[in-house]
Amino acid sequence: MQGDGMNYVPEGKKPEPVVKPGEFVIAAAALDHGHIYGMCQALTEAGATLKWVYDKDPEKVKAFLEKYPEAKAAAAEEEIMNDPEVRMVCGAAIPSERCALGLRAMRAGKDYFTDKCPLTTLEQLEEAKKTVKETGRKYMCYFSERLHVEAAVYAGYLVEQGLIGRVIQVVGLGPHRESPGTRPDWFYEREKYGGILTDIGSHQIEQFLFFTGNEDAKVVKSQIANYAHPQYPELDDFGDCMLVGENGATDYFRVDWFTPDGLRTWGDGRLFLLGTEGYIELRKYINVGTEDVRGDHVFLVNKDGEQYFNVSGKVGYPFFGQLILDCLNRTENAMTQEHCFKAAELCVRAQLAATKVE
Amino acid sequence: MQGDGMNYVPEGKKPEPVVKPGEFVIAAAALDHGHIYGMCQALTEAGATLKWVYDKDPEKVKAFLEKYPEAKAAAAEEEIMNDPEVRMVCGAAIPSERCALGLRAMRAGKDYFTDKCPLTTLEQLEEAKKTVKETGRKYMCYFSERLHVEAAVYAGYLVEQGLIGRVIQVVGLGPHRESPGTRPDWFYEREKYGGILTDIGSHQIEQFLFFTGNEDAKVVKSQIANYAHPQYPELDDFGDCMLVGENGATDYFRVDWFTPDGLRTWGDGRLFLLGTEGYIELRKYINVGTEDVRGDHVFLVNKDGEQYFNVSGKVGYPFFGQLILDCLNRTENAMTQEHCFKAAELCVRAQLAATKVE
Repeated sequence: MQGDGMNYVPEGKKPEPVVKPGEFVIAAAALDHGHIYGMCQALTEAGATLKWVYDKDPEKVKAFLEKYPEAKAAAAEEEIMNDPEVRMVCGAAIPSERCALGLRAMRAGKDYFTDKCPLTTLEQLEEAKKTVKETGRKYMCYFSERLHVEAAVYAGYLVEQGLIGRVIQVVGLGPHRESPGTRPDWFYEREKYGGILTDIGSHQIEQFLFFTGNEDAKVVKSQIANYAHPQYPELDDFGDCMLVGENGATDYFRVDWFTPDGLRTWGDGRLFLLGTEGYIELRKYINVGTEDVRGDHVFLVNKDGEQYFNVSGKVGYPFFGQLILDCLNRTENAMTQEHCFKAAELCVRAQLAATKVE
Repeated sequence: MQGDGMNYVPEGKKPEPVVKPGEFVIAAAALDHGHIYGMCQALTEAGATLKWVYDKDPEKVKAFLEKYPEAKAAAAEEEIMNDPEVRMVCGAAIPSERCALGLRAMRAGKDYFTDKCPLTTLEQLEEAKKTVKETGRKYMCYFSERLHVEAAVYAGYLVEQGLIGRVIQVVGLGPHRESPGTRPDWFYEREKYGGILTDIGSHQIEQFLFFTGNEDAKVVKSQIANYAHPQYPELDDFGDCMLVGENGATDYFRVDWFTPDGLRTWGDGRLFLLGTEGYIELRKYINVGTEDVRGDHVFLVNKDGEQYFNVSGKVGYPFFGQLILDCLNRTENAMTQEHCFKAAELCVRAQLAATKVE
């Protein structure tokens, strides 16, 4: 079973490091979201050397150092930005502050790897694009629900082999556990978390672009609601969205904060890829109602029959090693900058266009 | 495992007949769609006496009589309409002709039970409403994907007990097998089959209204596509739709004709009911990728944990006995006329409003 939503550190197949110790130095520069653990875990397993950690909250730094004793606590963010050894700054800031951190990192000559959502406004996106252009640095994003899920990695291979023909639609269900009492204030403040379609919707949009091979798409319809959290008027506890890609493939996703307490993991995330010659379902984190405690359940149906694969611990997460090499070689094998920014743009546009359902 | 899509006769728990032989006489008056078998099966199991069958195609009549030797072949539709013993006319006409048959039946003093979709245009709907008012007869519809699926019946009980709180969203996936070579010409002619959202979409809309307790809803966005059937330009091989009910619950459904040959049944129909306190998933016809050959898989997750029920053969289909009693007692326990017409209206409106995705 996968870790919980806030401190998501999947335990997939360990990779061969792509670099030797010291060849790719990273720093963790904002620890607001627990995803920073998953990001650092995946990068260090792929060979990165974690040199620094900084957060304005010493408690967060202390907890981080317990997990990563090899890192040093920086006295200030500048200490990281001024260290010429640091190639990449990793950050899981409050969503509305993610872009600003990225701009500082890129201007300091570092590549940037942020937790999702990559940013929260179109103005930030313009700044990010401009700064990428000016500095030649990367602004990459941890879309964990694809990049750090072995079922999703495996689905990518199946699609690539043409096993379901052309992918014509993606349906994603992204329920999450709210875990009341454990969330910081910013979780409930729209300007800070960005709205549900921008925040956890970003995973869904990125997946759609990836699995359908689209470089662009349009938001056809999007909705948000606060069905059951009147005490948090700025929380969207529900959002959904339809998109159409430039190649005609369609997307629907729903995201919500209604995972019940009785589910054994943080969310019963699903992905349905409908192809002209078959379909794939992913039960990413749990095969609900079975005794299996693993995630990464993949179902493939095509002309040859129904196949079930559990790929937990079997395929790993190639993105992270590729990202390190991309940074060193200035290539774009892990993800193109354009793809990352397009997902960022669409998740903001989905939120801006959303009708509030009452 | 359930029967195939064209001759759908589910084998659920048999009911106690609600009437004695001869107390509720029915006739089958149009056999264009194989659903007529499921309709007659369910009604006769619930106690109805099948007296007549008519179709202009003698081959269809012959096949029907092999299954139901107790019926007599009528020489003409009038023979059925003029028989005062007949209380209900059942029909699975070509969709565009379903309303006309119903008008004739109601004007002849019979209740009408049609295969879905109940009708294909708003003009037909107006005529149907007017004729119901004038004649006091019923115009009911075989929304088989809820009424004749034990998993769906069971889900109704779970929702009614409040086990997932208030239902705030329904997601339905309704893939169907095209079975090329077995379909009549009208299957590919839009004016006749009504478009995918009107046709197989009608199941989905009816389910949404039922499970969320809505008497009305709005089509928020709908789309159709012909992704892979250029030889049939009028076929929608894909459709999807978002609705919002008057109580604020939302709906998304996708319907398509892309069930791959390797699936062991005609479609991997799913239903996800998201509640404020839990959720339910139905795998209606198959638990894909397992060795189980049954349908009717129900997954319930709430504060108490994850529960799995297979209800195949266990709950039956109460609609049909209720419908017989409704006809005899002029009550509306099986389904209200308003509900049936609202589903009919919305499935036509979804089709009319649909954007064609290219």
